[in-house]
Amino acid sequence: MGVLGATGYTGIELLRILIQHPRIRLTTVTSQQFVGKRVSEVYPSLLGKCDLLLKALQVDKLASQIDLAFAALPHETSMEVVADLVERGKRVIDLSADFRLHDAGSYQRWYQAHKAPQLLRESIYGLTEIHRKEIATARLVANPGCYPTGAVLGLAPLFAKDLVRGSVVIDAKSGVTGAGRSSAVELSFSEVNENFKAYNVGVHRHTPEIEQELSQIAKRPISVFFAPHLIPISRGILSTMYVELKGTPKEEEIFGIYQDFYRDEPFVHVHPPGSFPQTKDVRGSNDCAVGFHYDARVKRLVVISAIDNLVKGAAGQAVQNMNLMYGWPETEALRGTALVP
Amino acid sequence: MGVLGATGYTGIELLRILIQHPRIRLTTVTSQQFVGKRVSEVYPSLLGKCDLLLKALQVDKLASQIDLAFAALPHETSMEVVADLVERGKRVIDLSADFRLHDAGSYQRWYQAHKAPQLLRESIYGLTEIHRKEIATARLVANPGCYPTGAVLGLAPLFAKDLVRGSVVIDAKSGVTGAGRSSAVELSFSEVNENFKAYNVGVHRHTPEIEQELSQIAKRPISVFFAPHLIPISRGILSTMYVELKGTPKEEEIFGIYQDFYRDEPFVHVHPPGSFPQTKDVRGSNDCAVGFHYDARVKRLVVISAIDNLVKGAAGQAVQNMNLMYGWPETEALRGTALVP
Amino acid sequence: MGVLGATGYTGIELLRILIQHPRIRLTTVTSQQFVGKRVSEVYPSLLGKCDLLLKALQVDKLASQIDLAFAALPHETSMEVVADLVERGKRVIDLSADFRLHDAGSYQRWYQAHKAPQLLRESIYGLTEIHRKEIATARLVANPGCYPTGAVLGLAPLFAKDLVRGSVVIDAKSGVTGAGRSSAVELSFSEVNENFKAYNVGVHRHTPEIEQELSQIAKRPISVFFAPHLIPISRGILSTMYVELKGTPKEEEIFGIYQDFYRDEPFVHVHPPGSFPQTKDVRGSNDCAVGFHYDARVKRLVVISAIDNLVKGAAGQAVQNMNLMYGWPETEALRGTALVP
Amino acid sequence: MGVLGATGYTGIELLRILIQHPRIRLTTVTSQQFVGKRVSEVYPSLLGKCDLLLKALQVDKLASQIDLAFAALPHETSMEVVADLVERGKRVIDLSADFRLHDAGSYQRWYQAHKAPQLLRESIYGLTEIHRKEIATARLVANPGCYPTGAVLGLAPLFAKDLVRGSVVIDAKSGVTGAGRSSAVELSFSEVNENFKAYNVGVHRHTPEIEQELSQIAKRPISVFFAPHLIPISRGILSTMYVELKGTPKEEEIFGIYQDFYRDEPFVHVHPPGSFPQTKDVRGSNDCAVGFHYDARVKRLVVISAIDNLVKGAAGQAVQNMNLMYGWPETEALRGTALVP
Repeated sequence: MGVLGATGYTGIELLRILIQHPRIRLTTVTSQQFVGKRVSEVYPSLLGKCDLLLKALQVDKLASQIDLAFAALPHETSMEVVADLVERGKRVIDLSADFRLHDAGSYQRWYQAHKAPQLLRESIYGLTEIHRKEIATARLVANPGCYPTGAVLGLAPLFAKDLVRGSVVIDAKSGVTGAGRSSAVELSFSEVNENFKAYNVGVHRHTPEIEQELSQIAKRPISVFFAPHLIPISRGILSTMYVELKGTPKEEEIFGIYQDFYRDEPFVHVHPPGSFPQTKDVRGSNDCAVGFHYDARVKRLVVISAIDNLVKGAAGQAVQNMNLMYGWPETEALRGTALVP
Repeated sequence: MGVLGATGYTGIELLRILIQHPRIRLTTVTSQQFVGKRVSEVYPSLLGKCDLLLKALQVDKLASQIDLAFAALPHETSMEVVADLVERGKRVIDLSADFRLHDAGSYQRWYQAHKAPQLLRESIYGLTEIHRKEIATARLVANPGCYPTGAVLGLAPLFAKDLVRGSVVIDAKSGVTGAGRSSAVELSFSEVNENFKAYNVGVHRHTPEIEQELSQIAKRPISVFFAPHLIPISRGILSTMYVELKGTPKEEEIFGIYQDFYRDEPFVHVHPPGSFPQTKDVRGSNDCAVGFHYDARVKRLVVISAIDNLVKGAAGQAVQNMNLMYGWPETEALRGTALVP
Repeated sequence: MGVLGATGYTGIELLRILIQHPRIRLTTVTSQQFVGKRVSEVYPSLLGKCDLLLKALQVDKLASQIDLAFAALPHETSMEVVADLVERGKRVIDLSADFRLHDAGSYQRWYQAHKAPQLLRESIYGLTEIHRKEIATARLVANPGCYPTGAVLGLAPLFAKDLVRGSVVIDAKSGVTGAGRSSAVELSFSEVNENFKAYNVGVHRHTPEIEQELSQIAKRPISVFFAPHLIPISRGILSTMYVELKGTPKEEEIFGIYQDFYRDEPFVHVHPPGSFPQTKDVRGSNDCAVGFHYDARVKRLVVISAIDNLVKGAAGQAVQNMNLMYGWPETEALRGTALVP
Repeated sequence: MGVLGATGYTGIELLRILIQHPRIRLTTVTSQQFVGKRVSEVYPSLLGKCDLLLKALQVDKLASQIDLAFAALPHETSMEVVADLVERGKRVIDLSADFRLHDAGSYQRWYQAHKAPQLLRESIYGLTEIHRKEIATARLVANPGCYPTGAVLGLAPLFAKDLVRGSVVIDAKSGVTGAGRSSAVELSFSEVNENFKAYNVGVHRHTPEIEQELSQIAKRPISVFFAPHLIPISRGILSTMYVELKGTPKEEEIFGIYQDFYRDEPFVHVHPPGSFPQTKDVRGSNDCAVGFHYDARVKRLVVISAIDNLVKGAAGQAVQNMNLMYGWPETEALRGTALVP
């Protein structure tokens, strides 16, 4: 196995999980900034646990050393490396945004022109609970964005049962690691601490990803209004979603629909009516917790989902997908409990 | 002047502001828990600035010492004390929830039976920008809740112009001081820190207060869906409000409507389209900042307002109301700038 | 196995670790406050991972169900329960302070009169790296306090080599979970957040524990000046220790002494000169990281150690001790990497 | 008045204070990064309170517009600008480190070669309580560093009375704004949050500044061991200082010495024995709070001082000095109470 971009936050989280995995051998970790250092020099938490040398990314060499690569590279950079690896017959789990949208035009609208559009139709969107079958045999898995993971898992049962009327409002709140390891002033402690703000309201790039997946589940075009916010915490996404329903269901019925949908899922936990998940319930674990409340007074359903953006929203789900791709137990290396308190 | 309940968070914030006020003399501060101590022993930040002795609340004595009382007492406790003071001819600014709802039945539904219902019709809801005239001559001002202050100021211009269709979703996020000085385990640092959660979704007691005020502005019954969340910060409320509009206005028109509505307001700042307020912009100040974005794709307006829950959401607005009641400049003692960073 | 006091922070951390342990079966979890609930109702992070029913603590019953008990009870409460269990032939790892001091007079001076003084001489102080041999065969292990764990591991090599002159200053800083699951107002979020303070300076009850252990290592009476501080973080202790040395050693020599002392220790990591540990390096892991700097200008050595107060400082070290007591690999269930970022 | 470098954290704090000052007119604010923007665009907290246009720094122009300049520029940059302004007969309060050390050799050892060494002897170290007289008539005031302010105020009475034996250990902890408005990755939220660390132990550039001032007070060369730490809060410095005393004084005597020393000081508050200051007591105010504890057991005095690094540790003290230089009441614009909670 190889981890490309191992010193970003997604990369280091992959390492934290993979070094606990009994069935794999991590051979190659790359970095742009820290070539020649041991990964445990950059992240002392790995001292004595993973002391691999960080190498520059060379696709040629890499191809001879690994069977599957986790690409935790910036988008656009990822595009070419991933295409190159897939062409050489390697399996890739790409954690960037580059292969998530199946429509090249949509990618171009929200990002820029795509350089490997031929792979957009082949790549499998790696939301495990929704695309399990295709992931198992995929060459290229596009690991979902953190926001889409929480939002789509929270809404999927409703769209699968065709219960939703009109568009959905997704008021999402994310911890700061969602922005990656960054030197932007606006992500500095003094700016973020003791502050709360919305950002990219209505224009965030995860919007088309959410709409693509919900539309596929609903079998009709779905639009959402997506408003992300920044919470002064390190990890966690809480998505509060406002839905108008067809009909006036009872809370117990809705609970039944969610339970059915996620009955055999090891990582999705449905709260009974009257109880909502919190981000700390899932901090450091690969779990997604979902709760809801139906308000008869204003005829609105509110669904709340919680994930750890770096685990189920990134590295954990990637490992879950790897487990599937190799036919291993899906929970291997992912059974850890959230760090509470 | 007197401050009843001076050692709670609203009380101590009143003191912080009032000791800077050039026109008043603070004579009486009461406390249940700390009788006999100096207020600066309980809050060392006041050392050398306010060393008054904390006394037990005795309405008889109080009535002879003060002209106006700020009542920062728990609701239900407040009810009787306030009624007693008003009967003795004192003016009262009540910071509890006890006199905010004009309808005794509504109060009973959301709280408990009211013991001074005769005052519910007389009391003036102290949202200064909306009820300035009545406040100036009021005997009893019911200072608004923190959430309603942010929500109603954010939505008032739209309802005044009759632009809103259907019910409004208010996804509000508050810092922890909104819960007061409390020993509840769920408000302990270890529970709140690095966590984010919703609470009282659809059932929070500020809901009827928001609906009362919006209905009065709209001149028709308005219902809202109100979902509060807890942010791990000390101060600040950000309210993200989702509105369906009649028609398809341009952002510039909406901006014009907000600017007109708040043209002469010293404490309300309207952001131009494309810019949103953050809670830190108003931390420690009496300001309310409002921004918005109209999304033509899903035909939704999102309005975001930010206040400091302890200032414009409580003590600051109370002092603003006092200034009005005495005919002083409304900004007296309230010109301070937010503590940034 | 049984965990007594499973819903406190130490208890829940024990559960987080023990449910990953392949060699044990957790049969009994007790709670005072939550009897009759499932532990996953109190801590939803355990949903699907540990759904045991919380029972009242009954020593009779317990004795028939378990072989070893982790007692995570408040001190004084622990005393009698532990004595009772030991008398019935059960092995106990006590995480309270009740059996850490071997001298009943010292216990009485710093706490209160002891009710089972006969066990004070028998109990083994469970600082694994220092008392490994005795722990392996112990009936009663007194798991160390969080501060003493960090301080003694940081200073032990110096005292073992008799390098220290005079008394040592320990300026320690702890996250808030060190105070346990508490409803004290002074531990509420609004009080702790954005604040930093010292507390119990010179009078903290961990002082005699540190002195007992250092004296034993040094084979002469050692006194320390211990000043704890509260950091607004959930987990982690950083101890900055100021030491005057006999002679003027080179940093490389000191490094060699530390490396020798901890050569085969899986959980203690010594930083080379010029590099210091941070609390995040060990958050959620059982590691203790140590670094130092010798200042020739003022002839002082500063040693800095970092642990997670709930893991190496409590539950993790308890499991490490259990592993020893059963002859299992000492790192079983404790190989997890710190949660970074 | 002019503020040079108005958009850094020290600059913006100067503005927050100066716009409340009744006796001055702020005419010029400069910025390198934001020339042409209004300061309230960069810091929306200033909307409607200070909307000055940010200009490029041109010493020529500046000299004709102002009487006194606050220079809040990076060190080395400051050096030349300040020298230039002083030559043109302007008074300058320099908030950089450039003119704090009177010895050019010392400056060169800890920073780099000095370009205006002739001013090092003339410049007055702006620790108001210590150098009040010289400040009043100074042309150039070198405003103290944040750490030295807290440390020297905490230790001055002891050295003035010649009570100290040997060197002093200063274990200081600072909030993150002390590092300024910075894009360094290690100051990003995800790195600092939920972390605590020491940095620059024994080699921090504030060391010679502390030693210079204590030596002057003691009238003999004093050396200190200075170990700074980073607290995950925005504002505040707590310095814990360990001192060996000549003799074995009673706590009441020490209290008397501190009270005498600071008797008429409006901003220094001495806590009685048994009570320590916390950073939140002074957050946002110009206060310095000092407490202490004498431990007879190990014959050590611990002194703890708290300041807000941006107020008494920077901008507030600068305004205090300006008030002195113009003969105004020293507390003008500085009477604000700390923002608690």
